Amino acid sequence: MKLLFIGDVVGSPGREMVEEYLPQIKEKYQPDCTVINGENAASGRGITEKIYRQLEAAGGDAITMGNHTWDNREIFQFIDQTSNLIRPANYPKGAPGKGMQMISAGSNEIAVINLLGRTFMNPVDDPFPVVKKLVEEARRHTPYIFVDFHAEATSEKQAMGWYLDGKVSAVVGTHTHVQTADNRVLPGGTAYLSDVGMTGPYDAVLGMEREAVLKRFLTTLPTRFEVPKTGRTLLSGCLIHMDRKTGKALSIDRILINEDRPFV
Amino acid sequence: MKLLFIGDVVGSPGREMVEEYLPQIKEKYQPDCTVINGENAASGRGITEKIYRQLEAAGGDAITMGNHTWDNREIFQFIDQTSNLIRPANYPKGAPGKGMQMISAGSNEIAVINLLGRTFMNPVDDPFPVVKKLVEEARRHTPYIFVDFHAEATSEKQAMGWYLDGKVSAVVGTHTHVQTADNRVLPGGTAYLSDVGMTGPYDAVLGMEREAVLKRFLTTLPTRFEVPKTGRTLLSGCLIHMDRKTGKALSIDRILINEDRPFV
Amino acid sequence: MKLLFIGDVVGSPGREMVEEYLPQIKEKYQPDCTVINGENAASGRGITEKIYRQLEAAGGDAITMGNHTWDNREIFQFIDQTSNLIRPANYPKGAPGKGMQMISAGSNEIAVINLLGRTFMNPVDDPFPVVKKLVEEARRHTPYIFVDFHAEATSEKQAMGWYLDGKVSAVVGTHTHVQTADNRVLPGGTAYLSDVGMTGPYDAVLGMEREAVLKRFLTTLPTRFEVPKTGRTLLSGCLIHMDRKTGKALSIDRILINEDRPFV
Amino acid sequence: MKLLFIGDVVGSPGREMVEEYLPQIKEKYQPDCTVINGENAASGRGITEKIYRQLEAAGGDAITMGNHTWDNREIFQFIDQTSNLIRPANYPKGAPGKGMQMISAGSNEIAVINLLGRTFMNPVDDPFPVVKKLVEEARRHTPYIFVDFHAEATSEKQAMGWYLDGKVSAVVGTHTHVQTADNRVLPGGTAYLSDVGMTGPYDAVLGMEREAVLKRFLTTLPTRFEVPKTGRTLLSGCLIHMDRKTGKALSIDRILINEDRPFV
Ligand SMILES: [Fe+2]
Ligand SMILES: [Fe+2]
Ligand SMILES: [Fe+2]
Ligand SMILES: [Fe+2]
Ligand SMILES: [Fe+2]
Ligand SMILES: [Fe+2]
Ligand SMILES: [Fe+2]
Ligand SMILES: [Fe+2]
Repeated sequence: MKLLFIGDVVGSPGREMVEEYLPQIKEKYQPDCTVINGENAASGRGITEKIYRQLEAAGGDAITMGNHTWDNREIFQFIDQTSNLIRPANYPKGAPGKGMQMISAGSNEIAVINLLGRTFMNPVDDPFPVVKKLVEEARRHTPYIFVDFHAEATSEKQAMGWYLDGKVSAVVGTHTHVQTADNRVLPGGTAYLSDVGMTGPYDAVLGMEREAVLKRFLTTLPTRFEVPKTGRTLLSGCLIHMDRKTGKALSIDRILINEDRPFV
Repeated sequence: MKLLFIGDVVGSPGREMVEEYLPQIKEKYQPDCTVINGENAASGRGITEKIYRQLEAAGGDAITMGNHTWDNREIFQFIDQTSNLIRPANYPKGAPGKGMQMISAGSNEIAVINLLGRTFMNPVDDPFPVVKKLVEEARRHTPYIFVDFHAEATSEKQAMGWYLDGKVSAVVGTHTHVQTADNRVLPGGTAYLSDVGMTGPYDAVLGMEREAVLKRFLTTLPTRFEVPKTGRTLLSGCLIHMDRKTGKALSIDRILINEDRPFV
Repeated sequence: MKLLFIGDVVGSPGREMVEEYLPQIKEKYQPDCTVINGENAASGRGITEKIYRQLEAAGGDAITMGNHTWDNREIFQFIDQTSNLIRPANYPKGAPGKGMQMISAGSNEIAVINLLGRTFMNPVDDPFPVVKKLVEEARRHTPYIFVDFHAEATSEKQAMGWYLDGKVSAVVGTHTHVQTADNRVLPGGTAYLSDVGMTGPYDAVLGMEREAVLKRFLTTLPTRFEVPKTGRTLLSGCLIHMDRKTGKALSIDRILINEDRPFV
Repeated sequence: MKLLFIGDVVGSPGREMVEEYLPQIKEKYQPDCTVINGENAASGRGITEKIYRQLEAAGGDAITMGNHTWDNREIFQFIDQTSNLIRPANYPKGAPGKGMQMISAGSNEIAVINLLGRTFMNPVDDPFPVVKKLVEEARRHTPYIFVDFHAEATSEKQAMGWYLDGKVSAVVGTHTHVQTADNRVLPGGTAYLSDVGMTGPYDAVLGMEREAVLKRFLTTLPTRFEVPKTGRTLLSGCLIHMDRKTGKALSIDRILINEDRPFV
């Protein structure tokens, strides 16, 4: 049982990378299910219905979000009509959308959970009890559980990994837009990666034009961050191999495609 | 010209990893200079004179620090007597120690700079103008310039990388204790890695006992974080190959040693 | 029906101010109930059993806490044996102690609630739904409800005031250690004051020796903050007059006693 | 020698309060110089040239700013043509505008300085050395020096007050939009007030529509904060009386005008 996860798709360069490489990656790795983090898919800020459909059409079985979930207001119009758009589960009660969804993977189902961290981020509900409850619910349906933990601090991410070790198939981080090299299977059988990284502009700062970001750092003056329309791009992802019977992770491999590391 | 950098050494497990593997790594890669980040070398918090000497004896030519520089008060007794202990350069004027040092590397010198980020960290002087000045000074002596940028946010780290691209040999991040997979040579010839990762306990949270960290996250009650004395360990580093004439980076390779990735 | 509230008592200078002036304040204002914030009562950090008893003996009917609740570990030994020690209600489930208590005030009862803010503070449970539930519970017993909202940001404090307007007798802030001048009765009948201020050293920074705090700001070097043992002191409080029948606030008056504003 | 300071003017309700009451306040207190913080004067975000002129016409001799300085981009068009618009002095070098200005007050001059804090705020240059230098410069011209310290944390504000005690006439805080009650003359002769408070909507959260702010706190969903166009308003200010010869403060009095505290 294999799950492919593609990290934060940023703007049109990110969507184009998905459209170009996802078929090839699928061809090569034959995943049973593909999850894409789409919180930056619409010009770096949130998602639109058209882009959500585009990412589905490109091969995404589920689209997860993050702190940018609500950046594009269009989401309020369609989130409750989608089946496979998953926003952080630990928003306060009453938020539109859902934080967990059972995704079909052949004759099986994979529970996909999206969660927000709190360290260095805006206050939201405590992700630990929220995920505990969701995992209990998920386990009544399936042994395959994937958690996209959208968080800044490596401490909170590692803590979540250890907290869920043995209870879920994988905890993979998003949000920093930089892939980490710490992919491993924890002793209890949970695949872990602090951050899967982003998909989009390669010569930018987190996918945004680097001149504007640099200007902000150097001057503290307001600058508008835009996704560069041209230039080199990268795709970041990971492949999790789960035991078909137990749902425990057998391996987690990183995928990183850019001009310095061409896809083969 | 090759520089080896070993990331945040945490406590005695970290020091032991350095003592065990640094000779073998040197044997294999033949670096001209070895830099070790020692901000967590003394039980996770700062450094003592004895441990500074121990890291030198183990093969470190320069020891860099970070936000934990002053955690162990003993540092105030010896920092100004050391030649190769380098603390963040952007502490306010008047702080003991120094933020840049020329380190001998055979018949050459390498300028080693330590810098602190500000995003999600305590206020310090602006690292951008500080490093600009230091780099100008360094370039009067040597084309080989190494920057250990101790920072939390990937945005600030990438911005620093682009800011210094073409001006220094390498910008390598520390502080998150998780190695990132984005090692690359930027177009201007500067090697870049968002974080080199840590050296110490492997089954812990940033090198601290995971039970205590988890209890803190789950309860918000105070817990004392300690470096576990036993258990598996890892070493994180990177090797930067610089052009002998120009100081420009030719390559940057990651080094990661743990039970899942044995040293070969 | 009158409630007297004394803000963050800092160390022995704060306790001495309470012992000296609380009898005189009570004599003058004749409150039915006195609440004291004691989160800094033990040398600025937390509270001990002895000091808790001392504040009760000095005239406190209830002692509220804040982000420093657990600073003195002794609290874990006695908090569950006390009847009138109230810690923030929005700690995660499982924390020792309680976040609301009915306090006798003559033949009546006053519900005293302690809450933590989240803006610029460490993550805790969302105070809004937590207080909503507690208020519903309290209203089954009494129309007199007092909320000590221990928070940093004026935005969060004002939001809480408006949120509870008409539902509780008073929302009074603590934590910044500086009394604000915005005491008012909101249109729905809830008394509001952004911060009641502190009780303790007057020529200090938030009650701590100013030289040490200044050194920290100027150098970023670690300094140990201590409560100065000598020197001028102040007491900060407020008096809330509630309608005997409805529990609605009729007035809220500030009390500020220091050498510049002697008690008369 | 008397200086009148009016705190953060928020939107048109704030400007109207200034126009209505400033003449009466001047009539009553006869200040030699009037300073107005205008960082929120344009719909709560920054300032325009027209509004700058309006505040001058209403009686402001100098307009200070804060973290919202650049919110309205129009400022870049006119800031360097204004004589009395003062933005925080501790922006990085190269920022438009100036951080100190000598303001005529009869036959004298008053140095007006604007500074940003860093605790719980975005990184800027260290305000302590920046203000030290400016004060040295100012003292060559005048003994009357006024500092508007735009900061969040009471610790940083009090630290600045003590740091400048005896060196300037007054340190008055802005930014929290809530007037504090701690006006005093420090032992060295510097008038101090942690925050002067805001001028604008009275039944709002920091001057913004309370429904929107509450919705944000309750749901974490994005809401657009607007200044309410109607409803009750307040004006916050303070009056500093300086010794004509030495520039030392003789007194600092708070001014607070709203329906609960009518101007008399
Ligand atoms: Fe993202
Ligand atoms: Fe994100
Ligand atoms: Fe570290
Ligand atoms: Fe660090
Ligand atoms: Fe306190
Ligand atoms: Fe507090
Ligand atoms: Fe403001
Ligand atoms: Fe402000």
